[in-house]
Amino acid sequence: MVDKESIIYGKNSITEALVSGKRQINKILISKNTNSDSKIQEIVNLARSKGIVFQFVPKEKFSIYSEFPHQGVVAQISPVKYTELDNFLEKSTGYKSVVILDGVEDPHNVGSIIRTAVCAGYDAIIIPSRRNAQVNATVEKASAGAINHIAIIQVNSLSNTIEKLKKHNYWIIAADAQGKDNYYDIDYCNMSFALIMGGEETGVSRNNLNKSDFIVKIPMLRNFNSLNVSNAASAIIYESVRQKLQTTKDSV
Amino acid sequence: MVDKESIIYGKNSITEALVSGKRQINKILISKNTNSDSKIQEIVNLARSKGIVFQFVPKEKFSIYSEFPHQGVVAQISPVKYTELDNFLEKSTGYKSVVILDGVEDPHNVGSIIRTAVCAGYDAIIIPSRRNAQVNATVEKASAGAINHIAIIQVNSLSNTIEKLKKHNYWIIAADAQGKDNYYDIDYCNMSFALIMGGEETGVSRNNLNKSDFIVKIPMLRNFNSLNVSNAASAIIYESVRQKLQTTKDSV
Repeated sequence: MVDKESIIYGKNSITEALVSGKRQINKILISKNTNSDSKIQEIVNLARSKGIVFQFVPKEKFSIYSEFPHQGVVAQISPVKYTELDNFLEKSTGYKSVVILDGVEDPHNVGSIIRTAVCAGYDAIIIPSRRNAQVNATVEKASAGAINHIAIIQVNSLSNTIEKLKKHNYWIIAADAQGKDNYYDIDYCNMSFALIMGGEETGVSRNNLNKSDFIVKIPMLRNFNSLNVSNAASAIIYESVRQKLQTTKDSV
Repeated sequence: MVDKESIIYGKNSITEALVSGKRQINKILISKNTNSDSKIQEIVNLARSKGIVFQFVPKEKFSIYSEFPHQGVVAQISPVKYTELDNFLEKSTGYKSVVILDGVEDPHNVGSIIRTAVCAGYDAIIIPSRRNAQVNATVEKASAGAINHIAIIQVNSLSNTIEKLKKHNYWIIAADAQGKDNYYDIDYCNMSFALIMGGEETGVSRNNLNKSDFIVKIPMLRNFNSLNVSNAASAIIYESVRQKLQTTKDSV
């Protein structure tokens, strides 16, 4: 069943939401048979100009929305107010820690990672607008409300985002089973860094691995290489916490 | 829907399973209105003698089993062959690491913790037969098959189990938000230890905290104290791995 808190439907409502910018829209689904409609065309143009993902889908895909008078167009909205990457970077002072999700499809994993990042005092989560679970009601629940305690940044291009982070002196650390260093052999202190966690099946994309300053692995002590991504994230995130807190203590 | 691989139903099938001991039974559910039936009484006696949990439940609870000719009795079976605690302790040589689950109710969390423990080379998972998710098909799936790569020990009393582990020179480490030490200030090397992870809401029980040699906490860097239990386990489990591998490397 579709949660009515998680969608906007109908041409006027969606046009209004796009114009006002008051609702965070994850994705707009448009039924293919409405293609030539002028109001739909307006929605497409607005979405394109604002960089919001839209997708033409067979009308059968709308059967789950049959209880709503949707007129062939549904926008999936987010329970979270996203932060703009540029705003986040400009307002930042001191060393920052962020997590980048690169293709994490399971909303429970996304929620758990946000939760861990909040507990660990991280500053932001960066989520690509395509090929990654968006912040929906399931993510919100799995995060135990943590989505409201951290900047969540939705970006259209991870590649551009990584470049921008590098210009702001972030070190890029990707987690990958084929990594050269063990995750605990990296020094997480005295720098801003972005930790990239890849999708459950696919891992961090080749392009993003190539852009990373470090590729770290989690050692596997049995012939079984299959850590859940949120648990892998937790091991690495809390290693960065340990280093910061133990270093602080030792230097007192 | 009930997975038919996860249950045995009917009086004769369950009696047979109890007598032969070939199937791992997590729990037997008996419909209250069958109470005076002599075959049911035999099942109760067999279950009691073998320390298998049974429970009388209102017959409405059986509605989910309506597709099976259950005769008012259903046994939830496990996809895993449990290891006996005594066998495990007797056969052990060298330092061992085990995880004890104390009231972890979500099967996804149980599966994830087993998965992490396997990746980290741990030796066993100890699960109490009451008030904890048992190893069922959901746990198996969440573990990504890890349940077949580690000894899984089902016990009736965690209290007795902890005493037995202590007699075998295990140190007992409980994770608790009110812990005295940070989890990384404990030395996990050169000893056998059991890490107790508590339930999502309840944490490690008071009785088991009292029996522990160490109570460790995970530092929280925001005003948000709510790590998912599988992610908390991952942080601690991989800290023990880090210590062992880094210590080994440093001493070479």
